Amino acid sequence: MSKVFFSVGMSLDGFIAPEGMEMAHAHDPNYKGWLGQWMALHQWVFRQKFFRENLKLGEGGETGQDNTLLEETFARTGVSIMGKRMFDGGEGQWPEEAPFHTPVFVLTKQVRSPWERPGGTTFHFVNDGIESALRQAREAAGDKDIRIAGGANAIIQYLNAGLVDEFTIAQAPVFFGGGVRLFDGIDRHKIALEITEAIHSPLVTHLRYAVTKR
Amino acid sequence: MSKVFFSVGMSLDGFIAPEGMEMAHAHDPNYKGWLGQWMALHQWVFRQKFFRENLKLGEGGETGQDNTLLEETFARTGVSIMGKRMFDGGEGQWPEEAPFHTPVFVLTKQVRSPWERPGGTTFHFVNDGIESALRQAREAAGDKDIRIAGGANAIIQYLNAGLVDEFTIAQAPVFFGGGVRLFDGIDRHKIALEITEAIHSPLVTHLRYAVTKR
Repeated sequence: MSKVFFSVGMSLDGFIAPEGMEMAHAHDPNYKGWLGQWMALHQWVFRQKFFRENLKLGEGGETGQDNTLLEETFARTGVSIMGKRMFDGGEGQWPEEAPFHTPVFVLTKQVRSPWERPGGTTFHFVNDGIESALRQAREAAGDKDIRIAGGANAIIQYLNAGLVDEFTIAQAPVFFGGGVRLFDGIDRHKIALEITEAIHSPLVTHLRYAVTKR
Repeated sequence: MSKVFFSVGMSLDGFIAPEGMEMAHAHDPNYKGWLGQWMALHQWVFRQKFFRENLKLGEGGETGQDNTLLEETFARTGVSIMGKRMFDGGEGQWPEEAPFHTPVFVLTKQVRSPWERPGGTTFHFVNDGIESALRQAREAAGDKDIRIAGGANAIIQYLNAGLVDEFTIAQAPVFFGGGVRLFDGIDRHKIALEITEAIHSPLVTHLRYAVTKR
């Protein structure tokens, strides 16, 4: 059966995004600072061959362990699920050929017809909760896995509901000092973890966990 | 010259202790729950040969990578520096032969004569700030290194003042959901890090960083 996982970048002090950045406009006085933080968090990604090819940024890029991990995460993902804020933030940012290339289920109260993009990404808007979205995702994913893409709120809802099998944190050696915390609202009584892997390159530590009790 | 470092256990959501535990009495209704959290965070330590010997808990214990890391941290430490709350919390908990076996400088407003314990630990009470404590620690440490033992407040003061050379986080695969955060109050503009190492055993991931800009 498909596994349910998430894979996100996190600062050493536990943040995955500057607070308010997702919905801000580029002329917001804070935007440049936020973008700098976000770039530092994901610095390891931008130089990888897979990332450059997937976003059509051109030839070249690194082909080592970090690139292999990006490729593997992409290859296993049959469907993504994301929260409304992540979708709203991305809608104006993703290129026309959105980088998912799979069905994407968006948790939202908005009623909207599926939005098909060139390159295989189709956004489906789910109005009846996380379990319904997951059922639909399982049907669409086939033998592949289901990625809870984000944001933190969607990830925590799935974790606390006992629906996540495993996850990877790409922990960057940076501090945010504030922003959106990954694990705010976690219900510690419901979850037990097992360390699966911890490997690092100069710019990131990949921490992989299996959820053993839910 | 002596290096200044810290080495602490942290939950995956960024906490190093339950809030309020340090100063609580054992008959506090929360105490048992807090102790359970604290034990889960440090579970990997209790089974190590070094820990058992140092606290005279008896023969046996593991002698693998985790034990070697404990031994190395102890061997390099010529002096520890700690905050007042950590000292107050430990004063009634440590055995008569306190587990440091070196001079310990306590940051406090309390004026108090040095407190010498059997086994080589002497607590010195410093009333004129973190830089004075560090100067005194350097004199006492000789060729060995200086450990900022904790708590979080003392560690963040030394980090933000640019006085820390490197640190290790023993990240346990547990969630706290609340408590004392390690990195609350960090000044992200002042600090840049480099990943030195990331290794794991079944119960803990050791994340080692060098501070490259201060």
